[in-house]
Amino acid sequence: MQDRPQPGQLLARGVGRHLESLGFSSLFEFVPSRGLRVDVMAVGPRGELWVVECKSCRADFRADAKWHGYLDWCDRFFWAVDADFPLDLLPEGTGLILADPWDAQILRLGPETPLAAARRKAMLLKIARTGADRLRRLSEAALSAAASA
Amino acid sequence: MQDRPQPGQLLARGVGRHLESLGFSSLFEFVPSRGLRVDVMAVGPRGELWVVECKSCRADFRADAKWHGYLDWCDRFFWAVDADFPLDLLPEGTGLILADPWDAQILRLGPETPLAAARRKAMLLKIARTGADRLRRLSEAALSAAASA
Repeated sequence: MQDRPQPGQLLARGVGRHLESLGFSSLFEFVPSRGLRVDVMAVGPRGELWVVECKSCRADFRADAKWHGYLDWCDRFFWAVDADFPLDLLPEGTGLILADPWDAQILRLGPETPLAAARRKAMLLKIARTGADRLRRLSEAALSAAASA
Repeated sequence: MQDRPQPGQLLARGVGRHLESLGFSSLFEFVPSRGLRVDVMAVGPRGELWVVECKSCRADFRADAKWHGYLDWCDRFFWAVDADFPLDLLPEGTGLILADPWDAQILRLGPETPLAAARRKAMLLKIARTGADRLRRLSEAALSAAASA
């Protein structure tokens, strides 16, 4: 995690900070389904699931052929871009977040398409297990470092 | 996380490793309800919730006046102790795990007392949000470190 952060990661940090102020918890780089990886999966206080894709530039957006697939895994979908991004590239009817590395703001909510209860339940279970597994790996590494210090 | 690990943390590491081999994801030091903090909250592949309390010695066990309260927040409850622990101290009808810092084994499952669906749902949501929040704090710290490197 000490590598130089990518532009998309920095946007995700700003997004995570803003979503926290709305009561949402953000898990980065989550895989809802095989072959799909979302930049931010945010979980609201009542189990609302929002997906945010962070696009640092035109090429980054053009390279994403999978975004329609993300819609099936969230109640709301957002793009997050910085102030230089050409907004007319983005498809209509999607949410929009203006972000920088330190904060963000929601410009457009986009439509709400509530998940079926069974899928929401499955996603919350997967998010819970993914987060716990990642933390445990980090804690293993920290304990190993402490033991060899 | 670079402080010298406590004996209970080391037992929890061994427990987490063994539970992983059973398909469970372990979140450490989870607060299911105000005033209660469990050493290990483990989440199974179908949302099973197991709580494991790690006791490094007799005094550690004696100091825990709250353990009955943990039973309300899991499908199964376990003590995890090392090979030197006086097993006759432990109450009957609870699960038992023999642990060391590297691995563990389940000696006794104890009774299964399935949670009500609403409580399981609330716990999975809280575990998902807790894990995401902790990871995001760690990632903020890592990004700050990278930026100042």
